[in-house]
Amino acid sequence: MSERTWVPVPEGSPFPVENLPLGIGARSGGRPTAWVAIGDDAVDLAAIDALGAFVDIELPDRCWSSGRLNEFLAAGPAVWSMVRAALGDLLTDRAAADRLARAIVSRADLVMGLPVAVGDFVDFYSSIHHATNVGRIFRPDAEPLLPNWRHLPVGYHGRSGTIVADGAEIRRPAGLRMVDGEPLYGPSRRLDIELEVGTIVGVGSDLGRPVTADRAGDHLYGLCLVNDWSARDIQAFEYQPLGPFLGKSFATSVSPWLVSFEALEPYRTTPPVQKPPVADHLRLDEPWAFDVTLEVLLQTSDMRARGQAAATISRTCFADMYWTPAQQFAHVTANGASSRPGDLLGSGTVSGPERGSEGSLIELTWNGERPIELPDGSTRTFLVDGDRVTLRGWAGGDGGPRLGLGEVTGTVVPNEEER
Amino acid sequence: MSERTWVPVPEGSPFPVENLPLGIGARSGGRPTAWVAIGDDAVDLAAIDALGAFVDIELPDRCWSSGRLNEFLAAGPAVWSMVRAALGDLLTDRAAADRLARAIVSRADLVMGLPVAVGDFVDFYSSIHHATNVGRIFRPDAEPLLPNWRHLPVGYHGRSGTIVADGAEIRRPAGLRMVDGEPLYGPSRRLDIELEVGTIVGVGSDLGRPVTADRAGDHLYGLCLVNDWSARDIQAFEYQPLGPFLGKSFATSVSPWLVSFEALEPYRTTPPVQKPPVADHLRLDEPWAFDVTLEVLLQTSDMRARGQAAATISRTCFADMYWTPAQQFAHVTANGASSRPGDLLGSGTVSGPERGSEGSLIELTWNGERPIELPDGSTRTFLVDGDRVTLRGWAGGDGGPRLGLGEVTGTVVPNEEER
Repeated sequence: MSERTWVPVPEGSPFPVENLPLGIGARSGGRPTAWVAIGDDAVDLAAIDALGAFVDIELPDRCWSSGRLNEFLAAGPAVWSMVRAALGDLLTDRAAADRLARAIVSRADLVMGLPVAVGDFVDFYSSIHHATNVGRIFRPDAEPLLPNWRHLPVGYHGRSGTIVADGAEIRRPAGLRMVDGEPLYGPSRRLDIELEVGTIVGVGSDLGRPVTADRAGDHLYGLCLVNDWSARDIQAFEYQPLGPFLGKSFATSVSPWLVSFEALEPYRTTPPVQKPPVADHLRLDEPWAFDVTLEVLLQTSDMRARGQAAATISRTCFADMYWTPAQQFAHVTANGASSRPGDLLGSGTVSGPERGSEGSLIELTWNGERPIELPDGSTRTFLVDGDRVTLRGWAGGDGGPRLGLGEVTGTVVPNEEER
Repeated sequence: MSERTWVPVPEGSPFPVENLPLGIGARSGGRPTAWVAIGDDAVDLAAIDALGAFVDIELPDRCWSSGRLNEFLAAGPAVWSMVRAALGDLLTDRAAADRLARAIVSRADLVMGLPVAVGDFVDFYSSIHHATNVGRIFRPDAEPLLPNWRHLPVGYHGRSGTIVADGAEIRRPAGLRMVDGEPLYGPSRRLDIELEVGTIVGVGSDLGRPVTADRAGDHLYGLCLVNDWSARDIQAFEYQPLGPFLGKSFATSVSPWLVSFEALEPYRTTPPVQKPPVADHLRLDEPWAFDVTLEVLLQTSDMRARGQAAATISRTCFADMYWTPAQQFAHVTANGASSRPGDLLGSGTVSGPERGSEGSLIELTWNGERPIELPDGSTRTFLVDGDRVTLRGWAGGDGGPRLGLGEVTGTVVPNEEER
């Protein structure tokens, strides 16, 4: 179908006309507004709206110019679908090409920001492989999964104010961590990544009104990539009994382009069987796994200096997740908590069952015991200043069409105290 | 000094002219705007601004009409002080009375909302008596305080989207909890309160720029009351290993009137000695405890029907807290996390050392073993539908002038599933 659009879409682009992901970007000196990505280009949604592209659709005021997609998301699935259909029509109607020419820019000319203003960020722990790995590393003599794990998608609130956009510098955090048996304040020595997929809430839900998993589709918009940077030493000292805090709250990177569940529909697949069966409110009436391949790429500053490309250090599949976005949303609201457009549900680290499919360095290097070798001859247990990490994801596996989530990158910079 | 204002202030009012707390309220049918409380009245800040009250002060645009105090808070301590001084002058200048008459309403005619839009809500665990009590109840054979407790103010992120205003109905939450050894989804049977004091961040801080405790005063605006409603059975099943989530996220009540640290200055006092000494970034250069007396009042629906006043079930003192607001803020930013105007730092349950000074039912009733007796002849371990809980706080102890934090009330309503 990619050939049908009049916009040139390079072979293997994550953004063919089947995708149409939305994001917020700004041209040099401009204000951030809403765009749709196609190939290497992006289309200015406010501009084509002004040209009448959405004339029959009841859109919220200023939904393309508010600098965030929250207002558009709040409009609901019918509007999402109509906008998607209108965009598909325009971008495959060769007669529209001239009219729209001025609304199209190269994506290279945009600085992308956060696609949404996140109200509440809930981070989950939904990969059984990740939870098992972490349990084995930290509690080698005990059952790796805690008793609640198979009954509910364990999660906690992250810090929404430190969610950062693609390309952000990640300053190495400082904190109290145990050094020779004493808690000392200083820069983390065990800085890690977490490869996650984020679900963005489109339509919120009211206080006192739980949404069951079989109705979650009325609320959830789509997916993005999330790097939940983690300082393992800070986390280890602080996390009892109230959970992770400073070990996570210094930065969370989110990818710029939101891919709708409507676009991902062909890649919907059956999640792993849940045993024991889950409670009624978490039961799915349709398959809520998605066949999305994920990769972690690492480029050291030496590799950059030598012109060496980033190395793939992990490849895994989102479809392996034990708990799905619909169940995560049902869990968030199960106690009657309300939710808002733009709320972010982080999947938790996506790890597969094989070596090399783990979504964090603490797993990939087994708590630092098995360093990773890199093309510049260096090794890594945890991140070194200057390291650049990119997460990448696409639907359809290796063979099929490449409908991508795009990428999110962050570069580690030194802590002030070290300079 | 109360006699000096030309507004009649009833004896014992929490809001004498020395207080001047700010809040957001709406008259019937009106939009929410900013007010200052004095006695039983409130003064419309936008109206007196239009009359020239703040003519020499550089205020942010629309800071009284935006429906939240965030913009005013972001303006910083110099502006806070100037506004406070201008209000004090006006309210003690008898010649201004006629001019301001139209800007004053009875507080009874206002519906108060949330004073701020909270970006991130961090809930702490800063009372040594509370942490010790909880440790003894849940781990009777172990050291009640975990190894990190005296080194940092343990805290975690709460849900900002379910912060509710004074007077809100609190729907009994449902969730998975252990019933006869099986996890079952249903309404909580152990619904509790947590008496807390909230610190409101005025001026935010930048990503990558920790603020040490001795500079926290440049950022923190003042105090409010917080009831962190808690479902102990849901919390007990979910909280390992990532901390509390649904057991807390269904509702958090915040009082309407923010009392500035400037007003509280006469009640500043020395916090408990910290042993071992804390890390440099948490060290205080001035006393950051406040002599604020706190009470929990409970009124059952039967008591209401009989016209019985609410019963005081706990009285305690905020000055007993081991960790102070300045240290909590320093901790939040210690890893470089940014903060925003309107961020809320919940103190954690304020419990004192004596029986009857505990800030939660789980402590007051010692995990349900010592029911509380109420004036209607009923007893309570945890909350029953129809129970109305009010938190109250004032500076200066019993004898001194009553400079109050005001009150925050919530009433428990049944879960849908039970009706």
